Amino acid sequence: MEDGAPELPQVMEAVFPHTGRAYAVGVTGAPGAGKSTLVESLITQIRAEGHRVAVLAVDPTSPFSGGALLGDRVRMQGHATDDGVFIRSMAARGHLGGLALAAPEAVRILDASGAAYVLIETVGVGQSEVEVMHSADTTVVVVTPRWGDGIQAGKAGLLEIGDIFAVNKADRDGGRDSVRELDQMLSLGPPRPWRPPVLETIATSGKGVAELWAAIRAHRAFLESSGELAERRRARLAREIAHLAAERVRYRIGGESAPVLDALVARVERREIDPQAAAEELLSALQLPGA
Amino acid sequence: MEDGAPELPQVMEAVFPHTGRAYAVGVTGAPGAGKSTLVESLITQIRAEGHRVAVLAVDPTSPFSGGALLGDRVRMQGHATDDGVFIRSMAARGHLGGLALAAPEAVRILDASGAAYVLIETVGVGQSEVEVMHSADTTVVVVTPRWGDGIQAGKAGLLEIGDIFAVNKADRDGGRDSVRELDQMLSLGPPRPWRPPVLETIATSGKGVAELWAAIRAHRAFLESSGELAERRRARLAREIAHLAAERVRYRIGGESAPVLDALVARVERREIDPQAAAEELLSALQLPGA
Repeated sequence: MEDGAPELPQVMEAVFPHTGRAYAVGVTGAPGAGKSTLVESLITQIRAEGHRVAVLAVDPTSPFSGGALLGDRVRMQGHATDDGVFIRSMAARGHLGGLALAAPEAVRILDASGAAYVLIETVGVGQSEVEVMHSADTTVVVVTPRWGDGIQAGKAGLLEIGDIFAVNKADRDGGRDSVRELDQMLSLGPPRPWRPPVLETIATSGKGVAELWAAIRAHRAFLESSGELAERRRARLAREIAHLAAERVRYRIGGESAPVLDALVARVERREIDPQAAAEELLSALQLPGA
Repeated sequence: MEDGAPELPQVMEAVFPHTGRAYAVGVTGAPGAGKSTLVESLITQIRAEGHRVAVLAVDPTSPFSGGALLGDRVRMQGHATDDGVFIRSMAARGHLGGLALAAPEAVRILDASGAAYVLIETVGVGQSEVEVMHSADTTVVVVTPRWGDGIQAGKAGLLEIGDIFAVNKADRDGGRDSVRELDQMLSLGPPRPWRPPVLETIATSGKGVAELWAAIRAHRAFLESSGELAERRRARLAREIAHLAAERVRYRIGGESAPVLDALVARVERREIDPQAAAEELLSALQLPGA
């Protein structure tokens, strides 16, 4: 799947009927917040309940970091001999929208493999990670004390995407302040049916991880009983299908438009029209709507 | 422009005839490599030659970091009283492809304002940054000694996007090794008309910055004399126009397809068809090509 092999559509078609059973938990947050250690501890929790678990560690910072390669090895250590655990790092593919489309497919393969839980961990923070989190049923945002600054979090899309907040390394200076600050910010605005809890964790010692896992299960129970789980999954599918459709059109524009595009570029170079006007003319010339 | 105001197309149309004069230099690399300090030193070099310069600091890690807000203030200090210098931080807009489309527009505005050089600095590394670098005429990749590990750089898209490599903090352990490693990797493969130089810099002391600036001017001279500058700019424009056209189609799919999409989602939910097949049917239903 990561290589975009030509037989992928057939493989995904065959896999698809076997999907829909796994519950996907996203774990995101700033680099160095301790996401990997937290994910390791969550694996232990899930295994203690006898469920199979798969981890998809997504690294949108590749190709620069090469993180995906190293990631697999480092992460494997704690659970290397447990065949109820499957861990896979996935690097960014070379095109925009790549991860947004690749992540749901990867989750489906792990789902079909029989994992009861798929943990999606993103290595960085940014546009791509927010896109990746669209594949999760429950999203855990991990912050650290030094990072819980009010202005930053307030400007962020953070409050919107988190279903649960974990203030990790909570024993450090400012831990309690971060929890309080986050809590206050989450109290602003209209009341919502699910009020995201703010939990303290110390991933390295395992402190607070049982509570985090309990919060994840509570959020799942809330989503299931309110009907919101089905609704979220429907919205996600709609988004993915529209995205796939747009990518196909984009591919066609790329393939067929070369001569038309060349002529338009020449006019833009002469400053006769601007790029937006050129895009409009391109769509007209290809008899595509949107002009 | 950052707010996506409704009058933007008119503004850009009015601005466009005044563009095409500035030379755009991209500066990218891993976080903590010293890119900002290096950009500050480059400003000093450019100002010493009497040119006006604009800096666009792009932060694709927002909305998480809030970096754009802080960035402006910190960066302003060294050149705050110099009205030949304009510095602007730009955060990611909330959608994929946002920066890829916003960056060229921002560069155009700075170009039209009369800057002879536009320095584009990206704060992180990843897909978005590579997209942003498509707006640059010359791309400088900044690495640090500890980061010059062969496997990492070898797996990276780094060797392809850099026109010039700066090993910053070159006085640290491993500085010379990094330069040699990078140099060796750049020697592999078929000979290219421009062989990217690998320079040592210490941005904090200014060491090597004059050489870096000279390398940028040498690369510019190479691009101009070989005709490659015009060719690169044409390819960039073609890419941007196709991207803009695809975004318009995507917008239309989002707007008109709701009832069709709902029905398709329901079939996918029942596992009758998979998302790729649904995308194909969506395009057929909307009479869009690509099915």
